[in-house]
Amino acid sequence: MALLVQKFGGTSVGTTERIEAVAEKVCRFRKEGHDVVVVVSAMSGETNRLIGLANDIMEEPTPREMDVLVSTGEQVTIALLSMALQKRGCDARSYTGAQVRILTDSSHTKARIKQIDEQRMREDLNAGRVVVVAGFQGIDENGSITTLGRGGSDTTAVALAAALKADECQIYTDVDGVYTTDPRVVDSARRLERITFEEMIEMASLGSKILQIRSVEFAGKYNVPLRVLSSFEEGEGTLITLEDENAMEQPVVSGIAFNRDEAKLTIAGVPDTPGSALRILQPISDANIEVDMIVQNVGADNRTDFTFTVHRNDFKRGQAILQRVSDELGAREVSGDSKIAKVSIVGVGMRSHAGVATKMFAALSNEGINILMISTSEIKISVVIDEKYLELAVRALHSAFELDKPGVEEA
Amino acid sequence: MALLVQKFGGTSVGTTERIEAVAEKVCRFRKEGHDVVVVVSAMSGETNRLIGLANDIMEEPTPREMDVLVSTGEQVTIALLSMALQKRGCDARSYTGAQVRILTDSSHTKARIKQIDEQRMREDLNAGRVVVVAGFQGIDENGSITTLGRGGSDTTAVALAAALKADECQIYTDVDGVYTTDPRVVDSARRLERITFEEMIEMASLGSKILQIRSVEFAGKYNVPLRVLSSFEEGEGTLITLEDENAMEQPVVSGIAFNRDEAKLTIAGVPDTPGSALRILQPISDANIEVDMIVQNVGADNRTDFTFTVHRNDFKRGQAILQRVSDELGAREVSGDSKIAKVSIVGVGMRSHAGVATKMFAALSNEGINILMISTSEIKISVVIDEKYLELAVRALHSAFELDKPGVEEA
Repeated sequence: MALLVQKFGGTSVGTTERIEAVAEKVCRFRKEGHDVVVVVSAMSGETNRLIGLANDIMEEPTPREMDVLVSTGEQVTIALLSMALQKRGCDARSYTGAQVRILTDSSHTKARIKQIDEQRMREDLNAGRVVVVAGFQGIDENGSITTLGRGGSDTTAVALAAALKADECQIYTDVDGVYTTDPRVVDSARRLERITFEEMIEMASLGSKILQIRSVEFAGKYNVPLRVLSSFEEGEGTLITLEDENAMEQPVVSGIAFNRDEAKLTIAGVPDTPGSALRILQPISDANIEVDMIVQNVGADNRTDFTFTVHRNDFKRGQAILQRVSDELGAREVSGDSKIAKVSIVGVGMRSHAGVATKMFAALSNEGINILMISTSEIKISVVIDEKYLELAVRALHSAFELDKPGVEEA
Repeated sequence: MALLVQKFGGTSVGTTERIEAVAEKVCRFRKEGHDVVVVVSAMSGETNRLIGLANDIMEEPTPREMDVLVSTGEQVTIALLSMALQKRGCDARSYTGAQVRILTDSSHTKARIKQIDEQRMREDLNAGRVVVVAGFQGIDENGSITTLGRGGSDTTAVALAAALKADECQIYTDVDGVYTTDPRVVDSARRLERITFEEMIEMASLGSKILQIRSVEFAGKYNVPLRVLSSFEEGEGTLITLEDENAMEQPVVSGIAFNRDEAKLTIAGVPDTPGSALRILQPISDANIEVDMIVQNVGADNRTDFTFTVHRNDFKRGQAILQRVSDELGAREVSGDSKIAKVSIVGVGMRSHAGVATKMFAALSNEGINILMISTSEIKISVVIDEKYLELAVRALHSAFELDKPGVEEA
């Protein structure tokens, strides 16, 4: 008999029929004897409808009032889900973020949780009730309603699980787990039974957008076992945990992430003086362009080549800015390529295995794929390649690291 | 420079355009130097949409969860109106019922206000802000969201005005004030500049449904000057106050109210024993049929005739119940008429003027209108007549009491 925090997103509660299906699922867990706290998002489309109303009135609505407005979305869902549970004879009680007292800072629309009062939930659980909590929202010390920003319901679920020391935080989504890579690209992609928090963070930020990064970090920090499962199908999903004690059993590489929407910009022949990187990147960041990979090579004549990647939508703007910078710095030239893609191998096992990079480069070379950029972290190696080779590269790497075969963990 | 509480109902805030128009109006008062607290309802249609969602799930949803659900309606409006005020450079802050701490009892869906903490509003007003409060809702001692029932936003406005000792509570509606009678029936019907609480209560319960009775009673109890005005047109509206000190100046009759939807039921020849009225009305009230007028005449042979009026929709059910009762009591017969209407003259001036009833009956008699039932209170005389004479009766009475001419008060 475990204490479970279960989170259902907007698609899973998008209609009253789906809310009934969620109630059915939650009741089943309750009847098996588990204590259940459910966190829900707004019904899909509702948050956008509310933002639309605000934008009818002003382009940049006050953040405080925006939070008052959009927080109604989850409030509707908690009431409806509680009714659907009660209809099934499953005693339930709903709470807004303010009521359960999810205390946050006052950064409206992107608040951070400071403290949770779990006493109230504990009382309801002890009385045999399912506790239904509005995700994504809290209250600050002045009693103003705050929201955690898009996807914040995942964070709410993890935070409640941490406060209640729950046995598991289950995130129900429209996918049935975390895969070795995108199954639409590689047929033999396999659902992972488990993955570490660190790997999940690297996978997520690279395009396998299943969970909000922040909630994974949060779960890692408080050591909350996190499970991703499907709202619509039965299955065990993928468990996200701290690194396994016996790291020897970790597979070397857990998954292949990739991203199509990248573009790269190069400023070549920059006089190699202290602060030149700053003088290049400052105007880019001032223009709110996010930079992903950065590579700098020392070249000849005390000059250096500086390359970085940005979102493809920012390519033209970035290029124009870089041209100005180039003139100021007396660099040789600015070049760029918006037809690139990034492919990464991710795995905590890399740490203890040599030669992973070599194996990766060999697999790409065997397919005649040229590597344009390389960047590495402790548990990840990313390469930039010509976009047209993306699928080929992912498949080659998936096969080279034997991801289509069950890993050691499942042996 | 006054402290005003202004309430705008669902139609007045039915679209974002209308919310902007409300903001425009409120800003104007603010710029004239008044302190303003605004109370708003849900955008028209929204409450019904939410109830529809609940009914998708269950026919009789739990009242606690129903309140969590429907209270989101006003929360959306307070956020949007605050934005619209801020856009006009008018500093504003929104509060839910829970935030402003409108403490109620725990009777979900029909809660009563127990206490209001006006401190918070006072601080905002002192800082030059417009305070925007969600109508219709509060919080009980356990921190659960409650609602005051349909039309409860009027009550919220009056309660805030009482707590703040506001100079005036202004209720904006889709009519521009209280009229001597329905202008659709009598062309020369005139807007009243003022009316007493008691008269307003008699007018409202008789069909001139402008304000929730409860809010008028509340305003009377706490002596909050109440004004009814139009959201859409300029004008002074009608001020509802305590009886004027110099009652001599009161017009005898202030208005003519009427109601088309009545039916009358008679049980004749009832043995006149103690408790017979109870034995007749108990089964009617057990069937949730509301009774309006009740008239009993002592007849011959220790037998009595008992007549009462009900809503026309309840006529057939009431008749069936009465037939059963008649058999039990050994009454002579049950009869009824569903084609009747009620017409009432209302005025605090009646108290000090004799002959008002005579004048009323004469006016009806002059038109050949037969009176089927009569019932009187201190400031009201009601008659039941054949439905087909309704318009004629209202016009005759309006003219007999010279309501088309400005009253003494305005001389």
